[in-house]
Amino acid sequence: MAQTRFDVTAIGNAIVDVLAHADDAFLTEHGIEKGAMTLVDEEGATRIYGGMPPAVEISGGSVANTAVGIASLGGRAAYMGKVRDDQLGRVFAHDIRAAGVSYDTVPATEGPASARCLILVTPDAQRSMNTYLGAAVEFNTRDVDADIIASSQVVYLEGYLYDPPEAKRALEKAAVLAKAAGRKVALTLSDAFCVDRHRSDFQNLIESSVDILFANEEEVVSLYQSGSFDDALQEIRGACGTAALTRSSAGSVIVGNGEVHVIDADPVTELVDTTGAGDLFAAGFLFGVTQGKDLATCGALGSVAAAEVISHFGARPDVSLKDLIRQKGL
Amino acid sequence: MAQTRFDVTAIGNAIVDVLAHADDAFLTEHGIEKGAMTLVDEEGATRIYGGMPPAVEISGGSVANTAVGIASLGGRAAYMGKVRDDQLGRVFAHDIRAAGVSYDTVPATEGPASARCLILVTPDAQRSMNTYLGAAVEFNTRDVDADIIASSQVVYLEGYLYDPPEAKRALEKAAVLAKAAGRKVALTLSDAFCVDRHRSDFQNLIESSVDILFANEEEVVSLYQSGSFDDALQEIRGACGTAALTRSSAGSVIVGNGEVHVIDADPVTELVDTTGAGDLFAAGFLFGVTQGKDLATCGALGSVAAAEVISHFGARPDVSLKDLIRQKGL
Repeated sequence: MAQTRFDVTAIGNAIVDVLAHADDAFLTEHGIEKGAMTLVDEEGATRIYGGMPPAVEISGGSVANTAVGIASLGGRAAYMGKVRDDQLGRVFAHDIRAAGVSYDTVPATEGPASARCLILVTPDAQRSMNTYLGAAVEFNTRDVDADIIASSQVVYLEGYLYDPPEAKRALEKAAVLAKAAGRKVALTLSDAFCVDRHRSDFQNLIESSVDILFANEEEVVSLYQSGSFDDALQEIRGACGTAALTRSSAGSVIVGNGEVHVIDADPVTELVDTTGAGDLFAAGFLFGVTQGKDLATCGALGSVAAAEVISHFGARPDVSLKDLIRQKGL
Repeated sequence: MAQTRFDVTAIGNAIVDVLAHADDAFLTEHGIEKGAMTLVDEEGATRIYGGMPPAVEISGGSVANTAVGIASLGGRAAYMGKVRDDQLGRVFAHDIRAAGVSYDTVPATEGPASARCLILVTPDAQRSMNTYLGAAVEFNTRDVDADIIASSQVVYLEGYLYDPPEAKRALEKAAVLAKAAGRKVALTLSDAFCVDRHRSDFQNLIESSVDILFANEEEVVSLYQSGSFDDALQEIRGACGTAALTRSSAGSVIVGNGEVHVIDADPVTELVDTTGAGDLFAAGFLFGVTQGKDLATCGALGSVAAAEVISHFGARPDVSLKDLIRQKGL
């Protein structure tokens, strides 16, 4: 096995989030599905942005947030994802590197602008996302660095990357490379609508390659078109090594090694913005896995990291998660 | 007199703020003057940004923040300032318009990129600013819309605009146009180092044209190279119609109409980031002036708006200031 340089290498859509507060009427008026991630074209993005109140730009991208969380926990993280060589692309690259994540994907020099995700946060702290993928769809097999994959304990794949066909092939290549190098493959299903678009592909990938699956309740129910969470839970138990299923304030259920753990959510003083909750849960969990922790501890680490990120605006930690878990005695 | 379409038209450097937390060691290492605004060239901006931790991008610009504050108070505000037709420029334009401010300055189609201000917020909530002016220096006399000036109760000039020579001429033109239209001219001295660079020009402008001057303690002391705040206060009493002098947590002193008011700062539960304190004080004060309020009430309005903006990250209000002043009984 190659020398281990990274605990986790994450591959996903490199996106800058554009966050603003909005009420439910705004979502209705613009036909935005509450709580979901919807893909929009450039025209759609322009139309929604035109109606949005003043916003804040913060680097995001689902598994990019996870990579930043792992670095904040003291883990060694790398990231692959495509931006253009434009202002938002440079902001993305600066922020992820400044957070301590290794990031060397070559930016596109032509084609669409760097991706952005217009996020409306409603007073109930839910986030509704409208993603213009832009340059992120240019991510392709040539961007997958085989040496980095082979030297990472876990490669973490973002389900959203199944939307652009070239990126889907790149993810599949990364999974094959990781397996060949004796490494673990983790996957997030990303979003229930994303599962709808790629149900059988995801089922096949999970059966063939995935060691650790992340999904929330809606996603895993959609994956098997189950009648209930428990039905889906029974399906997933036999399908992959470990599954971490998140249920918002109801905590999470971890299945694997013949075990089932029901983990409480970590208490939050003030719920501000749920953006990044799943991403940071995955950060804590994967950090635990790469540190050789048991599944219950991995789940507890996920809960602490998720609770931190939902207590403020934005999808990346505001404090050192390493210090936070030390305070919590983890 | 032309019909009044706006309460206040503000003219300044159109800037996107790039905010991050840093400690004092970072300031020392990068030779950054604590609490000041320092102009940096593109190379300097690149160097500091390279060392900065992950950041948040929020539209800023001193008097642009003031214009947004006036709109949030329910006033009618317009803004003039130059961006390029790039991503950060579009972010700036979107945010100020979405905040309800009229903004029609034509963006530059060539030349340097839109201006940015790299702001380091230290644990004591002080902000140290490093501004790359970029496209903002292209603001010139052709960008001054005479009709808007003539139809605004007050034109509010940003001292920082004295740094680019073309922009300085544009400010002087705006002051002349306002006077000719029987309108009021307000000026902010912006920064003690800016006063150092343009002391006699500012003194001349104040004597000849300024009806309402905004300055903090350091700026007004620098303006007259006074030995004390009180010395400066005595100088300024005779020099212009009204002066609003801010003193951080010590509140403000308002002089004008032969009166002197000493106004308390509004209490703040948690001081997070002083960026925008002066800008929002000016918003409250100018809103009061255009509503025909007495000077003490104008000062109180400034205190409430300033207290709101320093209780969170970023230099523009997070809540409706109109609602806030209603709650405060103003």
